[in-house]
Amino acid sequence: ISGFALKVRMFVKKAWDVGTNDPRKVIHCIKVGLALAIVSLFYFMRPLYDGVGGNAMWAVMTVVVVFEPTVGATLYKCFNRVLGTFLAGFLAVGVHWVASQSGERVEPFVVGASVFLLASAATFSRLIPSVKSRFDYGALIFILTFSFVAVSGYRVDKLFELAHHRISTIIIGSSLCILVIMLVCPIWSGQELHSLIVRNMDKLADSLDGCVTQYFNQSGEGTNSKEEATDNKLQGYKCVLSSKASEESMANFGRWEPSHGQFNFRHPWKQYLKIGASMRSCAYCIEALNSCIKSENQAAKLIKQHLGSGCLKVSSSSSNVIRELAETVKTMKKKSSTTDLLAEEMKSAVQGLQNDLKTIPHLLNPSAIPGNKTLETACSEATTPTVTLMELVPVVTLASILTEISGRIEALV
Amino acid sequence: ISGFALKVRMFVKKAWDVGTNDPRKVIHCIKVGLALAIVSLFYFMRPLYDGVGGNAMWAVMTVVVVFEPTVGATLYKCFNRVLGTFLAGFLAVGVHWVASQSGERVEPFVVGASVFLLASAATFSRLIPSVKSRFDYGALIFILTFSFVAVSGYRVDKLFELAHHRISTIIIGSSLCILVIMLVCPIWSGQELHSLIVRNMDKLADSLDGCVTQYFNQSGEGTNSKEEATDNKLQGYKCVLSSKASEESMANFGRWEPSHGQFNFRHPWKQYLKIGASMRSCAYCIEALNSCIKSENQAAKLIKQHLGSGCLKVSSSSSNVIRELAETVKTMKKKSSTTDLLAEEMKSAVQGLQNDLKTIPHLLNPSAIPGNKTLETACSEATTPTVTLMELVPVVTLASILTEISGRIEALV
Repeated sequence: ISGFALKVRMFVKKAWDVGTNDPRKVIHCIKVGLALAIVSLFYFMRPLYDGVGGNAMWAVMTVVVVFEPTVGATLYKCFNRVLGTFLAGFLAVGVHWVASQSGERVEPFVVGASVFLLASAATFSRLIPSVKSRFDYGALIFILTFSFVAVSGYRVDKLFELAHHRISTIIIGSSLCILVIMLVCPIWSGQELHSLIVRNMDKLADSLDGCVTQYFNQSGEGTNSKEEATDNKLQGYKCVLSSKASEESMANFGRWEPSHGQFNFRHPWKQYLKIGASMRSCAYCIEALNSCIKSENQAAKLIKQHLGSGCLKVSSSSSNVIRELAETVKTMKKKSSTTDLLAEEMKSAVQGLQNDLKTIPHLLNPSAIPGNKTLETACSEATTPTVTLMELVPVVTLASILTEISGRIEALV
Repeated sequence: ISGFALKVRMFVKKAWDVGTNDPRKVIHCIKVGLALAIVSLFYFMRPLYDGVGGNAMWAVMTVVVVFEPTVGATLYKCFNRVLGTFLAGFLAVGVHWVASQSGERVEPFVVGASVFLLASAATFSRLIPSVKSRFDYGALIFILTFSFVAVSGYRVDKLFELAHHRISTIIIGSSLCILVIMLVCPIWSGQELHSLIVRNMDKLADSLDGCVTQYFNQSGEGTNSKEEATDNKLQGYKCVLSSKASEESMANFGRWEPSHGQFNFRHPWKQYLKIGASMRSCAYCIEALNSCIKSENQAAKLIKQHLGSGCLKVSSSSSNVIRELAETVKTMKKKSSTTDLLAEEMKSAVQGLQNDLKTIPHLLNPSAIPGNKTLETACSEATTPTVTLMELVPVVTLASILTEISGRIEALV
């Protein structure tokens, strides 16, 4: 029993953490409750209830299934739900008319066959990528409403009224959702995407910086708690590695959002995905760099010292470029002259490192250093700067893409 | 107009491709249609209809929303739907009883407050990761049913009957879905996960192999079409990079599936995720390797020749190990002696490469080679084997994990 109590305590603690880490989640929950309570009024107030009868339930259902944490996702679902219901409602009334003309014995077969065909077709359309990204939910609702109205037609007399009620209650529910989600502490998925990208860029810069610094100060001192903090920073690039799916869905929902804050209609959401992709390729390089650093082949101290300052310069200047780019994205300005300056600095740092590399052979004079062992370590050492070099390729790409996006934003804002 | 026609043609072609590339998707669509047609019988046959009345609609709805391509996903949704409905039904009837005892004026407020509270709480529970992965859909259905039954209680007299009808129709719909999905060409998500992992391992081996081979034969001949085929192979590791989300969801659904084929209950799905993670870290290394190869610093021919055979041996032996492991996973045998043999071979190849590296200094005698330029290229060259060396670390991890999983499978089967 104490084991169970412990589990419950752990669970409550976890839940509490979820709430305290992101108070907006709690606000979201309260919003759901609020929207549902408002929509329940339909049941409690007689004049409203008389209008649509028992079908008022559809408004409640709509609120439950349509309400999502972000504005974009809710708008997407509302739009799809209304559109799907409209289309399916008209089609179903048409099919019912055809079926009722064809005599009572054939009617079930006509209805059944049409349900079979249309449900299969709509399910198939959900599997086509371009439809899936925009109308997945709409197709589901289409099947739902179509089978509901078409099949009901066999037993219900006032079919047109049923379809009409279903459409109007769904519109009522959807508009209530849109009102609540946009007026009470809205969470815009475009805004989320924007800050996710900026945050990830900062993390990337931190871990690139930290990773190289830690390597060259490895033997160094430093309290334990401080080390843990840097370790956390170092792991930052892992977030970048795994953020692809969330970026895509946010960009997808961002497309549905109206103008808000600094964002316009037709905001270049795809540019964010491009930046995300370049960041991921940077992060892959950092991952490789990291495994180099952790590998067992340790470099000779001599060479470490020789290359140390050059490597540090490259890493710090390139992380500065990333930070500056993050700032640029954050403020949505055009690429400033500072960025150019920093990029120049980065290039010269790379040049300096290459010069350092060229002077290695003098240190490596085989006669001066005992055995061949040192060269192997030299190579494993050389890996660090070379990978850093590699690492610059995506950074340059990032810079050029950013020039593009900032130009576009300039054109829009 | 011709532009529009072109777009339509493109769309139809794309849709056709989706169908021909994976015929199982078409079968899935037909299954959905079939299940819906069967459940419509409830409306057409009078004795069945009389049992549950207009509420038969819930069975149709259940089929529409619960039907998913894989067995695991469908079972997950069915189970969650039934559980959520049960819980919510009982609670709602209880709340209704309390509300009706408290007088007609207070009743709406009691019901409204309970809807507000429970909906907020259930929404909050959906945000806790451990609940989300297993009961996300159940919580949604809980809110839906609870607000449906509790709010209806204000207008409907036979509330208990309503709740009872809702539960029984949902059970009917769910069991029909389970029957259809398991009897007509079932697609098991466990099976899918299994073959995805095996396929990804093969792709990884191919691209590791191809990447290194291409580098050393770069100047070489070969027809254009053949090159394209290898390019496709080379890009295989990108699938591995981006397959995390699908692996996770499949493992999640796989947990719900009953024993089928070679798979038992309590199959170690988590082991697949571990293998997937090791594969991804391999893929990151290949990505870094690839960017090294594509970089502008080309190595001197001399050194390329010197290291070529060693590198090729390492890459081919390690890709052989991966292939062998894929075979082991495929047949779910215990780690065979062949794997050990191949791993030994890989280790000796690595050793050979290191020996090759040690002999470089002799080639690099500064007096013999003009200028310092060669060393830089040598280092950039040395990156290739070193990264390959790095690459071996995850492979070894993979092997050890695999020993574990194969041991477990042995214990289970």
